[in-house]
Amino acid sequence: MILTLDFASDIPIYQQIRNAVVRAIADGQLQPGERLPTVRALAQEAGINSMTVNKAYQLLKQEGYITTDGRNGAAVGSGPGRAAAASARRQKLEEELKLIVAEAKVNGISLGELEQMIGKLY
Amino acid sequence: MILTLDFASDIPIYQQIRNAVVRAIADGQLQPGERLPTVRALAQEAGINSMTVNKAYQLLKQEGYITTDGRNGAAVGSGPGRAAAASARRQKLEEELKLIVAEAKVNGISLGELEQMIGKLY
Repeated sequence: MILTLDFASDIPIYQQIRNAVVRAIADGQLQPGERLPTVRALAQEAGINSMTVNKAYQLLKQEGYITTDGRNGAAVGSGPGRAAAASARRQKLEEELKLIVAEAKVNGISLGELEQMIGKLY
Repeated sequence: MILTLDFASDIPIYQQIRNAVVRAIADGQLQPGERLPTVRALAQEAGINSMTVNKAYQLLKQEGYITTDGRNGAAVGSGPGRAAAASARRQKLEEELKLIVAEAKVNGISLGELEQMIGKLY
């Protein structure tokens, strides 16, 4: 997993970690069931506080992207757990899309252009 | 402008204000050139600190959505200033879209479904 943190960004570090994990799952860099680095290892590697990594993992767990277990650490979710969380996440996605669409409109980006951008990224 | 703040949200309050202004511009609730509430008035109305509102306005100014001037306060941008900022914002939008697409993929939302969701929102 490639983790690039931008300490000057408005996006909190724990959120940046969460986003990186979601992107890695989407890209197939992280496979269902695959184990994530331990909180301590990731914190050391990135030069950040363990609490920050822990907050990111808790959020990912709460969103259903990963599972955690005291003995084996965190792993990418698979199967029923992921499916159950998907509908809540779909609603959140729609909220995010609303803002994206508003920003596109204000910036004179047409629906066609927006669809083209998404088509290239998907 | 309808301003609903969620104090339990992970999204910082100044960012929520910024998002609400962008949405209001997209919806036509705020017209080009129209004046925004003063920092003090908005802070009082929402029961938040003036610094928070100021931070939101500074961000909106930096992004080119609004202009500010000491005498007349903040107003929705119009014309050349807005156009100049649009290309920087387009790049930011593409970054946001990357994350949205990743989240859609992980949640089993197809490209067609995503386009349908956007079509409804636009």
